Amino acid sequence: MSDWRDRLRVVLVAPRNPLNIGAAARAMSNFGFFHLRLVNPYEVAFHEARSAVGASAILQAAREYPSVAEAVADCSLVAGATALTGRGLQHPLRRLEYGGRMLRKHLAEAPAALLFGSEKFGLSNEDLSHCHWLVRIPTRQEHGSMNLGQAVAVALYELIRDPRAPQTHPKPQRAATVDQAERLTKLLLEALELSGYVNPRTSASTAQKLRRMVRRQALTGRDADVWLGMFRQLLWKLRQQ
Amino acid sequence: MSDWRDRLRVVLVAPRNPLNIGAAARAMSNFGFFHLRLVNPYEVAFHEARSAVGASAILQAAREYPSVAEAVADCSLVAGATALTGRGLQHPLRRLEYGGRMLRKHLAEAPAALLFGSEKFGLSNEDLSHCHWLVRIPTRQEHGSMNLGQAVAVALYELIRDPRAPQTHPKPQRAATVDQAERLTKLLLEALELSGYVNPRTSASTAQKLRRMVRRQALTGRDADVWLGMFRQLLWKLRQQ
Repeated sequence: MSDWRDRLRVVLVAPRNPLNIGAAARAMSNFGFFHLRLVNPYEVAFHEARSAVGASAILQAAREYPSVAEAVADCSLVAGATALTGRGLQHPLRRLEYGGRMLRKHLAEAPAALLFGSEKFGLSNEDLSHCHWLVRIPTRQEHGSMNLGQAVAVALYELIRDPRAPQTHPKPQRAATVDQAERLTKLLLEALELSGYVNPRTSASTAQKLRRMVRRQALTGRDADVWLGMFRQLLWKLRQQ
Repeated sequence: MSDWRDRLRVVLVAPRNPLNIGAAARAMSNFGFFHLRLVNPYEVAFHEARSAVGASAILQAAREYPSVAEAVADCSLVAGATALTGRGLQHPLRRLEYGGRMLRKHLAEAPAALLFGSEKFGLSNEDLSHCHWLVRIPTRQEHGSMNLGQAVAVALYELIRDPRAPQTHPKPQRAATVDQAERLTKLLLEALELSGYVNPRTSASTAQKLRRMVRRQALTGRDADVWLGMFRQLLWKLRQQ
């Protein structure tokens, strides 16, 4: 695979919760990233995550490193994910929308790492010193810290999102013809007359109101046929009374 | 709060896992959405999620409904999240990038609901019939189904992301002055001469190479001072030998 996504290494530093390790791997699989690296994971957690039912191939292939330096040695860009918002930081801090674009640009040509810290403490100053810059998911000031698995999912989504994504319809929806709309208007009017809803004296103006209303419904041809069938049946019953 | 975010109702239909309910609430809190509704949750799961340590105010305020119809009754738009990709769907299907924009537009004026199905089965046809359209997170065909908590996080992130988000620096980084660069070049050259790195015959051309190299480093004024200090010390030691 020579895809740009194949150049990203997702690095979890000292993760402690097997569910989070599993969730990170699942999001990677969802979005098409396959290189998971763990720096000093809590051994029991890594073992549990790996042996969980339905553990992904990504988790099976995940590699373990004793230090951040070794985990990112083959990368020419290292970005660290942080919930911090600037004060006291020694690194340029980019919001994910912007940092994601920079990362994608780099991945088009060369390997890069995206670092996530442990659930409890995030990335340490030592970990951060290996980063070229930091990226922040734009959470609220009042509750900045995200769950690890969710942070990985959101960051990877930002990398693969396509601002020019089109809308797809299950099938082309052909609009109702004018003839269908007019037949429906007539059936509706007759049903309303038979049921006593329409005052005979104002019937002409009611017909116009109904005609406009039916045309406002943005009916598809198929739905118009269903409505016509329903009103034919209603009229059949109304005429018997 | 008259924020547009206050008009969104996040609706989980028949969730079964307390961790997922908790994760959905956490992502909502991270991104500033506060109205969580649950339709027929598995009671034990809801109870566990609510009584978990650190359960959010969102979870405490979450409301329970016996049906989708009742959970979305005050909304004028209902969008359903699905991992399906079109075949057999009866609804218009929008990729999240596009559907998110539509949803945000609607929320600027009126309440809307975003529906998520149960972990195992997603939204049923009955649930889907309450939706105006569907939204799909652009996961891989080979592994489309996301974890519920992660799907909620990604969808909400798409709603709040700001494509014009700026880069922030911890502080304005003043570049090194030409004077600093030149002093550094001279110290470096002297150190190299004293250590025998520079061939005296080619010393002039080496000086030019060093001058260009120092200027390529994109030094900040502060870092230049650190380098100058380090080389002064090195020279002091070299001169003693």
